[in-house]
Amino acid sequence: MAHHRFVPTHYHVAIGAHPPVLRVAPGDTVSTTTVDARGRDQSDQQVTERGNPQTGPFYVEGAEPGDTLVMRFDRIWPNRKRGWTGTAVAPNVLDPGFDPAFADRVDLAEWEVDLEKGTARMISPASPLGKLAMPLAPMLGCFGVAPPRSQAISTATSSTHGGNMDYRGFVQGATVYFPVFVPGALLHLGDCHAVQGDGEIVGTGIEISAEVTFGVDLIKNHPINWPHAENAEYIMTVGNARPLDQCVQHATTEMLRWLTGDFGLDARTAHLLLGQCVQYDLGNIYDPAYTMVCKVSKQVLAEIGAGRK
Amino acid sequence: MAHHRFVPTHYHVAIGAHPPVLRVAPGDTVSTTTVDARGRDQSDQQVTERGNPQTGPFYVEGAEPGDTLVMRFDRIWPNRKRGWTGTAVAPNVLDPGFDPAFADRVDLAEWEVDLEKGTARMISPASPLGKLAMPLAPMLGCFGVAPPRSQAISTATSSTHGGNMDYRGFVQGATVYFPVFVPGALLHLGDCHAVQGDGEIVGTGIEISAEVTFGVDLIKNHPINWPHAENAEYIMTVGNARPLDQCVQHATTEMLRWLTGDFGLDARTAHLLLGQCVQYDLGNIYDPAYTMVCKVSKQVLAEIGAGRK
Amino acid sequence: MAHHRFVPTHYHVAIGAHPPVLRVAPGDTVSTTTVDARGRDQSDQQVTERGNPQTGPFYVEGAEPGDTLVMRFDRIWPNRKRGWTGTAVAPNVLDPGFDPAFADRVDLAEWEVDLEKGTARMISPASPLGKLAMPLAPMLGCFGVAPPRSQAISTATSSTHGGNMDYRGFVQGATVYFPVFVPGALLHLGDCHAVQGDGEIVGTGIEISAEVTFGVDLIKNHPINWPHAENAEYIMTVGNARPLDQCVQHATTEMLRWLTGDFGLDARTAHLLLGQCVQYDLGNIYDPAYTMVCKVSKQVLAEIGAGRK
Amino acid sequence: MAHHRFVPTHYHVAIGAHPPVLRVAPGDTVSTTTVDARGRDQSDQQVTERGNPQTGPFYVEGAEPGDTLVMRFDRIWPNRKRGWTGTAVAPNVLDPGFDPAFADRVDLAEWEVDLEKGTARMISPASPLGKLAMPLAPMLGCFGVAPPRSQAISTATSSTHGGNMDYRGFVQGATVYFPVFVPGALLHLGDCHAVQGDGEIVGTGIEISAEVTFGVDLIKNHPINWPHAENAEYIMTVGNARPLDQCVQHATTEMLRWLTGDFGLDARTAHLLLGQCVQYDLGNIYDPAYTMVCKVSKQVLAEIGAGRK
Repeated sequence: MAHHRFVPTHYHVAIGAHPPVLRVAPGDTVSTTTVDARGRDQSDQQVTERGNPQTGPFYVEGAEPGDTLVMRFDRIWPNRKRGWTGTAVAPNVLDPGFDPAFADRVDLAEWEVDLEKGTARMISPASPLGKLAMPLAPMLGCFGVAPPRSQAISTATSSTHGGNMDYRGFVQGATVYFPVFVPGALLHLGDCHAVQGDGEIVGTGIEISAEVTFGVDLIKNHPINWPHAENAEYIMTVGNARPLDQCVQHATTEMLRWLTGDFGLDARTAHLLLGQCVQYDLGNIYDPAYTMVCKVSKQVLAEIGAGRK
Repeated sequence: MAHHRFVPTHYHVAIGAHPPVLRVAPGDTVSTTTVDARGRDQSDQQVTERGNPQTGPFYVEGAEPGDTLVMRFDRIWPNRKRGWTGTAVAPNVLDPGFDPAFADRVDLAEWEVDLEKGTARMISPASPLGKLAMPLAPMLGCFGVAPPRSQAISTATSSTHGGNMDYRGFVQGATVYFPVFVPGALLHLGDCHAVQGDGEIVGTGIEISAEVTFGVDLIKNHPINWPHAENAEYIMTVGNARPLDQCVQHATTEMLRWLTGDFGLDARTAHLLLGQCVQYDLGNIYDPAYTMVCKVSKQVLAEIGAGRK
Repeated sequence: MAHHRFVPTHYHVAIGAHPPVLRVAPGDTVSTTTVDARGRDQSDQQVTERGNPQTGPFYVEGAEPGDTLVMRFDRIWPNRKRGWTGTAVAPNVLDPGFDPAFADRVDLAEWEVDLEKGTARMISPASPLGKLAMPLAPMLGCFGVAPPRSQAISTATSSTHGGNMDYRGFVQGATVYFPVFVPGALLHLGDCHAVQGDGEIVGTGIEISAEVTFGVDLIKNHPINWPHAENAEYIMTVGNARPLDQCVQHATTEMLRWLTGDFGLDARTAHLLLGQCVQYDLGNIYDPAYTMVCKVSKQVLAEIGAGRK
Repeated sequence: MAHHRFVPTHYHVAIGAHPPVLRVAPGDTVSTTTVDARGRDQSDQQVTERGNPQTGPFYVEGAEPGDTLVMRFDRIWPNRKRGWTGTAVAPNVLDPGFDPAFADRVDLAEWEVDLEKGTARMISPASPLGKLAMPLAPMLGCFGVAPPRSQAISTATSSTHGGNMDYRGFVQGATVYFPVFVPGALLHLGDCHAVQGDGEIVGTGIEISAEVTFGVDLIKNHPINWPHAENAEYIMTVGNARPLDQCVQHATTEMLRWLTGDFGLDARTAHLLLGQCVQYDLGNIYDPAYTMVCKVSKQVLAEIGAGRK
């Protein structure tokens, strides 16, 4: 149950079977830092290339293909006071041909992050939006494990291995489960957003460097098809694809598998339960693969006596 | 400001320019009843054909193309004790080729609705789900105004005129705004669900007949492109199409129009605001046209001084 | 086997159960005219509103729900010398945010149609394209039968009843089969294109008024799900929906039904045949519902001894 | 202008920056062999793992990011007499929930390929389809160059770098153009189909090992966004994505860029030309990324005086 402190010296913009930077054991925790999406660190210095550069990979001892890797976010908190966002809703999120036609377009907006009060405020460009103090809800936009088939997959996108899911539910307190495709799982992480709206529709949250503490664990001989997650209130499955319909298909199918597998529900009950109780969150509708999350309330599961085996 | 009590004698399974059953004035309220999706009334008797039969249409005096029709849900409450749902997640919501493979498939599940306690409980088929008492959240699945171009559109689907949106946010306390396409607007309503999960993924909520009281009003010379809505916390725009991506495009584009129109935001602020504050709900992913809802917090609008003109 | 000559006096921009303009018997032929998509007739005079106005409907004696209506195009030929097209590829056909950025944008291009030589040539705006003499291949963009459920569906879109499919294979020599939803079938037709590229990607073919001669027939007690068609070389099924993937699903599923039904193939053979022999055409990727056509070679069917029952 | 004969000893199931097996110069030709999709060679022996294993990569001297790599297929011909295909149309190509319900399902069909007559005939399972002698049209399903961002992308899918496009137009006589992302371009090739229907809807063509001779060349300082191609009759652009709509967007946008770039057309002419002359082919609708091809007739380009610069 060791706690590791890891200071990164280099980063990756594809998630793959890179040489591990640290070997950790199931049950261990790691504290490390992540740079922002443009490769800028806590001093706002550019230390690596753009594009969601990842810290890692971390090799988890004993992880083998067919296992499930557990990643528990104990702390995700910005480590500098300045963040930035995109300024225009992405064309793929708007009606084809709709012209937003705004004057004085700027490429980036700057946000001041008050780490003590836990709020973010836009300081440029000039806008009435600057009046708004948004509560911080720091999340990781991009993280995951080495994918199958000797692939190395760009941190712009996501798939069964995780990656750039940009889901604002991946905050501290959440636990995420990944299929293990290679020995050691090879966990990567980066791309903190201090705040993000649903869908990441301007192409960014409030992009910032961060301090992250996470725990790792293993469920041996427990294959899953898509990332799972949970927080205090919900169990969740994640589908990454295009169009959004396919994300929903992946996430819902995987939730049926989980409910009838680990939770021991008969298929009839799993379907009936989802019918009236399921909830969906939109992760992102900006990246090459979009993300939808399928959620079921833990309280509902408890009320019907469905416990994890 | 009259209050009308209307008892329907016939119903429609397409929304169009049918002869009005009642003429009402802006500011009036109407209390009426709706049959369930299979055409069964409060006595559970089949009184009309299946397929979301609609009560109405109601002619709103003074409504002309280019106006906005306001429909305020004062009360939506089941008027019988028995509801039913589908039992299997629809194939279009699951991975192609995934076989849910459940034995003892039944076509419908029955739910007992306790109108005093405000809960619903499944009573057949046998399932641990029967232990769950779900709080009622009665909504209308299908309602809208006569569409443009002399169309009559099936109550199975939805478009700019509303229709079968199956969004569980359309509960009492919500106000919905429709574009007016024909004189009198010709408002139809039906298809109450006592409870519904996101997406209506088994093809139904808890389908039930209902008592509905709604107010109508007009905003003259105020064209909109897609349904708008609001409740105590949010303003909302609704996109109905396939795939879900296109729903998001319609709803988000319409929200930008609303924010820069009635709410007077400059385009830059509207984009920046949506980027970090927008929320989306999945209405349905079952009907021929799917539904996504784009939401913005009224408190956020208040904090930045954005008031409706 | 009567031949009717019908001169239209009014038109419809929704396909529905309008009062028939003529009653015809199975085996009859009809010669009539259609106005262009903007409601202009053979004198280029605006005689009705825009939006693919339809001639008809024609009531086919004896047609009942569950039958198949047969419509054979004996002749489709423009009846004036001037056609027009859109000038810009539609935004939904281009990458989101791609700016075609062309100067001197004009809304419409004019084409001169040489009815004797059988060619079309663009005469404005000024462009090297004016050098090209395109062979005429006149087709009907929008035609179909009254839809089910008392619907009236805009001539902007298409569905199981046909409608605005904008497929350039619907030329003289083709026979189209529609499901019958209402007594008399109620056949509508209009929207001739003298020439059209795949996909109708500028939103138009060379739009023109036309003279059309078609034969009608009935296949009693022969329900189909989507339009079928054939020409000298192929049998075809048509899927109308969004996205294109869903069009392919509808058309391919319907082809399997046709091959294993009327053509008597066992399911195994039908699947294997499609696997290596199927062809697809893109009808339109512009209208609210897109169109894909699934084709199988008649010669291949003959070689394996598959004859229509 | 050397001719190389290369005998592969190992293969790759992801396309990436693997160590090159051979260095060739622009203008050179290479003759080599490819194994079939299951890793079986000309003796039908399994020599490597399944999943479209690739021969290569070939390093092209002088190729740098920003160049275009030219790959000319001089010969693609099976080198054994036995091929195999899938037997069932893939669920994602059929209506959700449609049950093809065929008895006696077999996983693979076997085809006898007559290399002298140039035909293929199915020899098992038993089916009337066995009567059909299909003309060989050997193509490569999967080939491409190392992708950007240090990625290695599975040979199951495709993107801007090419990959598993499964387009039956990639036959001998075709020339394909790829963007160069890494020094040497690193060309991979494999996955010959002796015959394939549009869409690869049973998940395979007639899968077979092959002898391939190709020429390579370079266009220096000539960035492109998506693969281009040409044959005697057409120039083509290729879009790989999901859904098919997005493939069409990529391919059409790229065709506009090509016409207004290398072919020197003004934007107005390029749009007008595509409107009435464009053609589309469906590559595949089976792989994780689908493929659509946008085509323009070379004769049309010649008639309007549009020559490549």
